[in-house]
Amino acid sequence: MVSLQAANNEIGTINDIEKIGNICKEQQVFYHCDAVQAIGRVPIDVKKLNIDALTISGHKIYGPKGVGAIYLKDDKMIDPLIDGGYQNTFSSGTQNVPAIVGFGKACEILQQEGPEENERIRRLRDYLLNLLMQNIPDVIVNGMMINRLPNNLNISIPGVKTEAFIMGMDDVMISGGSACTAGEFEPSYVLKAIQAKYPDCAIRFGLGRWTTKEEIEYAVNRIVEITKSVRS
Amino acid sequence: MVSLQAANNEIGTINDIEKIGNICKEQQVFYHCDAVQAIGRVPIDVKKLNIDALTISGHKIYGPKGVGAIYLKDDKMIDPLIDGGYQNTFSSGTQNVPAIVGFGKACEILQQEGPEENERIRRLRDYLLNLLMQNIPDVIVNGMMINRLPNNLNISIPGVKTEAFIMGMDDVMISGGSACTAGEFEPSYVLKAIQAKYPDCAIRFGLGRWTTKEEIEYAVNRIVEITKSVRS
Repeated sequence: MVSLQAANNEIGTINDIEKIGNICKEQQVFYHCDAVQAIGRVPIDVKKLNIDALTISGHKIYGPKGVGAIYLKDDKMIDPLIDGGYQNTFSSGTQNVPAIVGFGKACEILQQEGPEENERIRRLRDYLLNLLMQNIPDVIVNGMMINRLPNNLNISIPGVKTEAFIMGMDDVMISGGSACTAGEFEPSYVLKAIQAKYPDCAIRFGLGRWTTKEEIEYAVNRIVEITKSVRS
Repeated sequence: MVSLQAANNEIGTINDIEKIGNICKEQQVFYHCDAVQAIGRVPIDVKKLNIDALTISGHKIYGPKGVGAIYLKDDKMIDPLIDGGYQNTFSSGTQNVPAIVGFGKACEILQQEGPEENERIRRLRDYLLNLLMQNIPDVIVNGMMINRLPNNLNISIPGVKTEAFIMGMDDVMISGGSACTAGEFEPSYVLKAIQAKYPDCAIRFGLGRWTTKEEIEYAVNRIVEITKSVRS
């Protein structure tokens, strides 16, 4: 079995899902695509891309937390991990109907507004990077800028450790790694894996539906302030 | 390991948790108490009752769906079934903060209003049974009336099958067994286990925070109607 993210949650880079799907098909390997980060940002055609299973989550698209969905080419391909209470095929317990309905509605809104929203967020993200580069010329982008989710930016500022930003500002929300590892000050394993030059100086920005140009400018000012202060 | 319901979901009977806890302690067996049905209805003191683990669920107490809680005497006693994403100790994935907060609030309200509510519901439930007995003298109660959850009534009306009620009324919500087996017309395995005399004629009533006396009378009228019609 191959189980891979369609897009990475820390650096936003999009995998070559089509190539992976073709290799899996050739080798007759079950292919699970984790599309939690990619849903609504990257077009994915499960049939065309030879995907056997695909998973998505509600809270990444402004839907409820605690709800996800799985696509299965053939539902006989997997067995539930937890058995009992036969309201559902693949999980036990009482169906969370409000969350399921909310997730469906969030998907509907995403389908309608997603393309335009992605374009707006991408422009804002690029504006953020441009402002940072103008003010901190040696800033480094972690991960490629092409084939990247529009809402993600991950940079390193040489000589200024992630902690300095996290502890220096409580008015701008950034992180060094994923939320799963929040609270740790170990450099992200993703940045280490891609051999990022300054993994301990990484800042991850997430942009969203309600991010404004003013917020971007405010965040850059704060980051520039802290950078100057640490460097001096 | 012993894993038992504190109270049964179909017939509302309350187990002798104290006795079970004492036996488990004597035999040095891990005791898990499933208190999903009992929470707020039956006082449970985990320390006094020698309970090692206790589980409860939000949606049974007017809290959100999709959220539960576990009490563990010692959190080293169990290992998570699903690993990864270290926001939580015993489950993977993003914490459902709104549901957790809602569940906490529901517990708070239950603690304040539970005792009085239980008394009101118990009186309504007994009124329901009395009305049924007056109108259908051969009605049989499944499970004992003592040591029973105040919100549950499970009866059988000899000669009138569960389906007749389920299919005959869409204005009164009843069931033959648990929601987990809804859609099946097989008699409940719980009723078979307690050797109920007419398991295929069982009706389960659930009373709740908003059930009124008028609704009880309406329900009895409908059940009497259908009983008379089937029996004639």
